[in-house]
Parts: sequence; structure tokens; C-alpha cells
Amino acid sequence: MIRISLDAMGGDFGPEVVIPGAAKALERHPDVNFLLFGQKARCEGILAAYPKLREKSVFHDCEVAVGMDEKPSQALRRGRYVSSMWRSIEAVKTGQADVVVSAGNTGALMAMSKFCLRTMANVERPAIAAIWPTLKGESIVLDVGATIGADAQQLLDFALMGGAMARALFDLDRPLVGLLNVGVEEIKGQEEVKEAGRLIREAGLDTMDYYGFVEGDDLGKGTVDVVVTEGFTGNIALKTAEGTARQIAQYLRSAMSRTLLAKIGYILAKGAFDRLREKMDPRKVNGGVFLGLNGIVIKSHGGTDAEGFAAAIDVGYDMARNGLTQKIENDLKKYHARHPSNAGPEAA
Amino acid sequence: MIRISLDAMGGDFGPEVVIPGAAKALERHPDVNFLLFGQKARCEGILAAYPKLREKSVFHDCEVAVGMDEKPSQALRRGRYVSSMWRSIEAVKTGQADVVVSAGNTGALMAMSKFCLRTMANVERPAIAAIWPTLKGESIVLDVGATIGADAQQLLDFALMGGAMARALFDLDRPLVGLLNVGVEEIKGQEEVKEAGRLIREAGLDTMDYYGFVEGDDLGKGTVDVVVTEGFTGNIALKTAEGTARQIAQYLRSAMSRTLLAKIGYILAKGAFDRLREKMDPRKVNGGVFLGLNGIVIKSHGGTDAEGFAAAIDVGYDMARNGLTQKIENDLKKYHARHPSNAGPEAA
Repeated sequence: MIRISLDAMGGDFGPEVVIPGAAKALERHPDVNFLLFGQKARCEGILAAYPKLREKSVFHDCEVAVGMDEKPSQALRRGRYVSSMWRSIEAVKTGQADVVVSAGNTGALMAMSKFCLRTMANVERPAIAAIWPTLKGESIVLDVGATIGADAQQLLDFALMGGAMARALFDLDRPLVGLLNVGVEEIKGQEEVKEAGRLIREAGLDTMDYYGFVEGDDLGKGTVDVVVTEGFTGNIALKTAEGTARQIAQYLRSAMSRTLLAKIGYILAKGAFDRLREKMDPRKVNGGVFLGLNGIVIKSHGGTDAEGFAAAIDVGYDMARNGLTQKIENDLKKYHARHPSNAGPEAA
Repeated sequence: MIRISLDAMGGDFGPEVVIPGAAKALERHPDVNFLLFGQKARCEGILAAYPKLREKSVFHDCEVAVGMDEKPSQALRRGRYVSSMWRSIEAVKTGQADVVVSAGNTGALMAMSKFCLRTMANVERPAIAAIWPTLKGESIVLDVGATIGADAQQLLDFALMGGAMARALFDLDRPLVGLLNVGVEEIKGQEEVKEAGRLIREAGLDTMDYYGFVEGDDLGKGTVDVVVTEGFTGNIALKTAEGTARQIAQYLRSAMSRTLLAKIGYILAKGAFDRLREKMDPRKVNGGVFLGLNGIVIKSHGGTDAEGFAAAIDVGYDMARNGLTQKIENDLKKYHARHPSNAGPEAA
């Protein structure tokens, strides 16, 4: 049995999306039990429409719902201990849940997760990992925006954590890991990236294979299973790719509606277009994963629908089932036991 | 009359692409004269097939062709004064040409351009500007990889130079300029980016309108005319967008060839697909522009064909016709006259 804690008030639509999303996920994973945290008045009626979900859930009434525009500090001040976001995270801390999923605002969710779950021993800073669709399948890209900047040791931590996630999600023994870099100048890349490459190579890790540097166009190709970068660049790469996909979808739509022949062609090829749309559907790869905390936190897109939220629950389910937190902890422990000089403050 | 200097040996295919490309560009711009720099033995036969181009060109035999894999230092050592790349740049320096176009390797071309043309007064470092296709038309994005990192003053220089280029290329009075940033954390972005925003706002420039911060997905939307960022992030954003476009094109191709109905639909909608392909065609937006040097250098994609090389010549033609270098010089002079404390070393 996997126990999943849900912040029913998170996202642009709150329980209107979270509850139907949970119902969909339950159909796929009948071995799930849910802990629902939300404002009773808004959730009760919706939940009543999903008797199967209701049966497999325990509902916890919460005073506060964190707003999508609230700053992290404000959300913490107003929502600590009492909000649906905080209490859904706390359920992981107390061991009542294996994983928490929220579509709430990223900054607040990260601040509360850090405050409540604390950063893992040996990890300086948590990261947000995105699941990136590629021509070969899927890759993991991190950090996509937890923090700005990272030194070589932090990039190595990201590599370890991303590698553990790839093993949990893709069922690989030794995922291929690359560092995101540029290749235009003789002296390539940032010092931290070069130094991180050296550290990873020297570490001789048996939980991954180090590929070397990759460039921006390797993301879509799926050259490696895990792409490591700091949060500023990772966030801009992620949003640039999303923006480009939307841009091309828009080109395609207007091209297909311009002439009668194109419209007829579109109708005939509709099955193919539907498959393409599915491939490009951001809901299918919905769910950023917070790595490096004492517990698994899944962030769903705020603007997603029930299908997208269910996909985020799927990710959480896989992560919990495959013992992601344990895998990361073990990998970090193994590395730091062999490299005591690089140990984080808590391992001293 | 516009005089364009060409490095006939640059790119993966050298004169086989450069010479037919020049012939195409000449059809569109009959007021162009070319200076061709290349190895006579390889160029002569090809040039003979384009009598009109031959008539409007002066050919200069060069000893050395810079290789696509040569490191900048190696290229400078081997090719300074004697290579087709160097001599085509030198023609701009001596005033024989208004602009130079090369498909040669970026690192070598930038190193030689800096060495030969020198950085403009008041500019600390040159930048590479890309022309980015958007839902609204085109934007300029810089720096896409001339240098790693940039401080606030350098980002302001990029804004001034990109603004001048937008005025020259898009015929705008006051292009809208934005700084690339992330929006996930309470304390948003890098210190340099925030400081650059403050500098640009305070400068009260009358040659542009400052929009504020933009994110990765604003690139494809065309939210602003000029997007300013440092070279590491800019290069990764550019390659990520190119990679995503190729990835989706690949999805589309395989979707359209999977069933008979899809194939028939494809044939009927072929006109629409051709238009889409044209929209997504990287050759149409071929040509990075080196900004901040005493002369205009256009870098064409190394792997491009004649159509793509002609598009790079088009960009060079527009830049020369609209006096890009002069516009940048004037804008920088105006800014630094009003902000003497921020003046570069040469303006002291």
C-alpha cells in the first residue's frame, strides 16, 4: 500500500482539479490510500461525487489555503501548521504518508518543504527535478529553479540525486549523467561546471555512468538520462522548451486551418495529430520532484487539469514505490564515506 | 552600393555553399558588390558557374583555410593575415567592405574579429546576437555565447547594442527590451540581472523602452523585441529551442507516416505543412551578429546550405544599409556622456 498526501487547495483550481485527479490516479493504482488536506466547505461536495475515492481517503479539514501569488515568507507566516499545504507535507514528516503532491505555488511549497522536512544530511541545498520528454523517451533535468547558482560540490550532489531518481523512475542500473554546458569558446563553460565534471569523474561512482558535457540541443535528443545544471539556467531551459513547443503548436494550428485542403487533410490525419498532441502534452510529463529533503514532495503545474494532476500523482507513486528517498540517502552516504573531505556540515 | 566581404572557405562545405549562396543573395540585392576570399583552386570552378556573381565580385586568393575544429588560438596562429577568414574580416577594417559574412567556426571567427577589428570604445566585451523567430515575428536575443557571464554594466551594454540592432533590422524607433530572468523564488534572479534592471531603468534611454524581466517562455511569444542575457544562459536557451523544434518536427514526421489515412491527410495538407516547415526552417533565421566590434561580422551556421547562407548575407546587407555600427556607437556615446562614472576604460 502506498499512502499519498494531497494538498487539495493547491493550484489554480484547487479541489475542482485535485479531487477528480486523485480519482483518476486511484483507478490506475488501486493500492493507494489518500490523505486529503483542504477546506471542508469547498471539498465536501466535490468529494461526494467520487465515492470510490472517498472510501480510500481520510479528509483533514484545514483553516488556511495558501494563495498562488503569496510570497514564500508570507505563506509561511500565514500557513505554517494550519494550511492544507503545510499539513499535507507534515504527513510525510510524521510518517503517515509516503509522498505528498501539491499544485500550490512553487516558492511557498519549497519554503514549507524545507522548513518542515529539512534538508537531507550531506545535502547543502535541495533541487527541483523535471521529467523531460525526449526523442528516446524521458530524461531527468535538475535543478530547474530551486536555487540560483551552484558550486561544483552542489552540482555533484544534483548528479547523485538525479541518478537515484532515474534509477527509481526508469528502472535503470546505471543511468547516464551529463553536465549542461556550452561549446562555443575554446575555454568552455563555467569554472563550477568544469570542476564538477572533474569531481564526478574522480568519484568513480558505481550508481551511474558519467557522460561528460551536454549542450542545450541534447535535452530533446535524450542524449543522457540525467542532465545536471544550476537552477537559473535549468529554469530558463525548461521554460524555453515549453515556450517553443507552444509556439510550434500554434504554427501548426494556423497552418492546418488556412485552406480547405489543409482542413480536409487535418480531418483524415486526425488520429496522427491526436497522437502528436499527446506526445507534446505537458500534462503527461507533469510533476517536478523536490530532491534532497527528508521526504518526497511532488510539485504539479498550478494550471493543470485533473489528467495532469493524476500524472503528477503517478510520479509520486513511482517514487514512493521505488524508495527514492532511501536510494538518494544511500548514494550520498556511500559517496561521502569515501570522500570525507567533501562531506556537508551535518556529516562532520 | 553595399560591399560585402565573404569568407568563401568557411562552413562545413566552404565554396560549394558560399558561392551559390552569394549568387542567390545577389538576385535579391542587385546593388551588392562582393569581395571573395578563398583558395583559388577550390573556388575557381564553382565561381565560373555563376557569371553574374563573378562580374560583381573581386576574388582574393588566400593561402590558408581555417578548419571547423580548430581552436581559436590555433586558428589565430595559423591563419592570422593569411587565411580567408582573417582577410575577409580585414576588408571591413580597411574600409573596403561594409560587412563580412562567414560560416567558419564561431570561436575562431570571434577571436579573429576581436583581434582584427578591436572592441568598440565604451564596450567591454562583444556579444553574439541571434535573430529569434517568435509568434509575433522576430526578436533579437543576446549574448548567445560570446562570453560566459556578464556583470550589470555589460548587460546594459548588451541592451544598448541589441536595441540599436533592433532599430536597424526591424525599423523600430524604440524597441522593447527585456532582461531574461527566472520567476520561481521570492528573491528572483541573479544579482547582476537585478542590478542591470536598475541601471537600465535609471538610464532613462530614449532609444528603447525597458519592459522589465522576461522568462524563458517569453522568447517564443515575442513579448519583447530584444532579450538580454549572459552568454552561458543565452547559448543554452538557443540550443534548447533549436533542439525542441527538431524534436517536434521528428514527432510530426513519424505521426504523419504511421497510417494510410495520415499519409493521405499529409498529401492533402502538404501546402500547409510546407508553410509550417518554412516557419520552422532554421535557415530562414540564419545568421548570428557579432556586436560591439568596430565593424559588422555575421556568423552563418556552419552546416547551412546556399539558401541559409544567402539569408545570412541578407542580415548583413540590412545591418550595413541601416548603419548598425554607427547606431551602436552613437547610442553608447550618448549613454556614456550622461553616465561618465560608468564609462569603459577607453572613454576615461
